Amino acid sequence: MRDGSIKALFFDVFGTLVDWRGGVAREARSILEPLAISLDWLAFADAWRAEYQPAMEDVRAGRIPYAKLDVLHRQMLEKILPRFRLQNLPDGALAQLTFAWHRLDAWPDVHSGLARLRRRFLLAPVSNGNIALMADLARHNGIHWDAILGAAIARDFKPQPAVYLAAADAFNLEPAQCLMCAAHAADLKAAANCGLHVAYILRPFESPEANKVVPVLPLDLSVRDTMELAEQLGA
Amino acid sequence: MRDGSIKALFFDVFGTLVDWRGGVAREARSILEPLAISLDWLAFADAWRAEYQPAMEDVRAGRIPYAKLDVLHRQMLEKILPRFRLQNLPDGALAQLTFAWHRLDAWPDVHSGLARLRRRFLLAPVSNGNIALMADLARHNGIHWDAILGAAIARDFKPQPAVYLAAADAFNLEPAQCLMCAAHAADLKAAANCGLHVAYILRPFESPEANKVVPVLPLDLSVRDTMELAEQLGA
Repeated sequence: MRDGSIKALFFDVFGTLVDWRGGVAREARSILEPLAISLDWLAFADAWRAEYQPAMEDVRAGRIPYAKLDVLHRQMLEKILPRFRLQNLPDGALAQLTFAWHRLDAWPDVHSGLARLRRRFLLAPVSNGNIALMADLARHNGIHWDAILGAAIARDFKPQPAVYLAAADAFNLEPAQCLMCAAHAADLKAAANCGLHVAYILRPFESPEANKVVPVLPLDLSVRDTMELAEQLGA
Repeated sequence: MRDGSIKALFFDVFGTLVDWRGGVAREARSILEPLAISLDWLAFADAWRAEYQPAMEDVRAGRIPYAKLDVLHRQMLEKILPRFRLQNLPDGALAQLTFAWHRLDAWPDVHSGLARLRRRFLLAPVSNGNIALMADLARHNGIHWDAILGAAIARDFKPQPAVYLAAADAFNLEPAQCLMCAAHAADLKAAANCGLHVAYILRPFESPEANKVVPVLPLDLSVRDTMELAEQLGA
């Protein structure tokens, strides 16, 4: 793999590059506290995120057509509102909350790590997030992507093979010329099954569940952050 | 339009941002001269480009499924080879030639003009070129796109409405929040019909045909280059 055959690096985004839990908690607090609402903000973020896989599963199983993650985020939010006694929130606050996901901060290594990696590789997010969401996160965190790939290109969600294969194809590459980088075992397993190389990035602060499921497949790389990834790849 | 309602600028690429004619002629010469081939290089570029609209028309009319422009460029090339007595070119030279389109130079204003515009607007190519082609041209010319939109997202070619509408939708925008910038009347006409604002960029050196067909629709802006566009938009 270190023979120059890797041309592009693909990144999972939520958890791997950006801190969704801390960011959603912070944004929810800044939107809801002025409305005299007080919550366990991290529990709110966890509850919202817990609806993530079930929401996408309806699309992956073909029960509903592809919808942007922004749309699913709104539906997921509406589902958890009663649990936090928030069912009477004004619509403006709901819209603001939904877009909390566009304002998440990257982990501290990401800006420098990706800038370094970009000197040597094509870089793209291969996330389940839609294009506007990915573009806003890139702006917010000073990331320069070569293209935004992922769910929007394949009109399906990871870990469906079509998402990884469409990403490689968009760059005119074979799967074996691409390295999928993620903090989640299931994502790497699906990418490896499609023939991509895989790098595991440890993100112990993503959530209390982080890194508990360690990938069982052969990993091409296992690194602490994107700076170590750059070192390991000689970038 | 200058009231802050425009959020994204979409750019046509071939002719509007990059000099396809000079670039293809230069690349063809650098690939073919070492094979002791001499041609009218500009005539070769013009002949190749002349196959562009017919090739895409088969897709737009639904006669063949969507194919990347890289694939169409190769088919278009094979079509004109006999006319230039090039039918016996080695396969390596054909592959290199096909990718000449990935190495085109931008017009001199583009690097600075787009950097300035990006401080205020989301920027994306809305081209018929595929993602790898757009990503390589951006690298080659130091352009920082927020996303690569266009034909690959819509799986159809301009001037089909789906291409402009899919671009606006990818950024979560209404068509009226987007400004399509191009040197070609037909592109602007189709974008305006979809509800986008339109800016005409004069590119008199694109080809002998350049700017002969002046847009007859109401233009929001008409500028000499991307620097003037930045000035006009207060960026």
